[in-house]
Amino acid sequence: MATEIERKFLVRGEGWRQAAPLEIRQGYLNRDKQRTVRVRITGARAYLTVKGMPKGLARPEFEYEIPLADAEQMLSLCEGPLLEKRRHVVNHAGTTWEVDEFLGENAGLIVAEVELEDERQSFERPDWLHTEVTDDPRYLNSNLSMHPYARW
Amino acid sequence: MATEIERKFLVRGEGWRQAAPLEIRQGYLNRDKQRTVRVRITGARAYLTVKGMPKGLARPEFEYEIPLADAEQMLSLCEGPLLEKRRHVVNHAGTTWEVDEFLGENAGLIVAEVELEDERQSFERPDWLHTEVTDDPRYLNSNLSMHPYARW
Repeated sequence: MATEIERKFLVRGEGWRQAAPLEIRQGYLNRDKQRTVRVRITGARAYLTVKGMPKGLARPEFEYEIPLADAEQMLSLCEGPLLEKRRHVVNHAGTTWEVDEFLGENAGLIVAEVELEDERQSFERPDWLHTEVTDDPRYLNSNLSMHPYARW
Repeated sequence: MATEIERKFLVRGEGWRQAAPLEIRQGYLNRDKQRTVRVRITGARAYLTVKGMPKGLARPEFEYEIPLADAEQMLSLCEGPLLEKRRHVVNHAGTTWEVDEFLGENAGLIVAEVELEDERQSFERPDWLHTEVTDDPRYLNSNLSMHPYARW
């Protein structure tokens, strides 16, 4: 198991945009807060990921790479609409940011995430970073497919 | 993906009993009919298994072996009580039967399963085989932990 510690922000401007983002499609086999089970296809690779209940910024996470063909079929078993997004991976002052540009019913939403070693770790803020939304459950990907940004 | 085609029976007598059954502990990260996600520990091995909606006797199934330590932690994320059983693997006239002797709140329930290549495949019935329960959803393992045999 890994423990995922991350902080999440809205962005402004275009400074985060990369030329060749990763295309991500994902769905949920469970979207309860206590346990999410996610199927994700990123380019030619696929993953099955179990996450537990968030405790503060930390969240238990178990991720397994699975065959792409399995994931394609498993996406059809998922609850509700799939989530599609383009991930821009940005290095800024030694920190890696994942900036997700959502598509479909979540178009217009752009969220930057940073994964930390521990909850108090400091990092340099890029100038395109805007409001922090770490604690707002609306921004959980497991909520965005059922309650997309277009309907907020 | 594999497609699981199986038939399920109650048993009578003791002819199915083996000296060294496998100890199985399992729980569910999702127990919807449309998609179950099971965490299973069998001896020193562990598996994460996704199953789709049954269609007749057939059911899509995706199974991945995972580290035992991950499974131990994931069992604590599962919904409802865990299911415990002893699995007796019995060979009869070229067919392999899995006879599950349930424990805990399902004690007293013993179910034999045979996995088939196709839905019309015939097999020789061992004399300890009793009523078929393939189509009875109460016997789905995903239902037995929430609605155990002791409370039927």
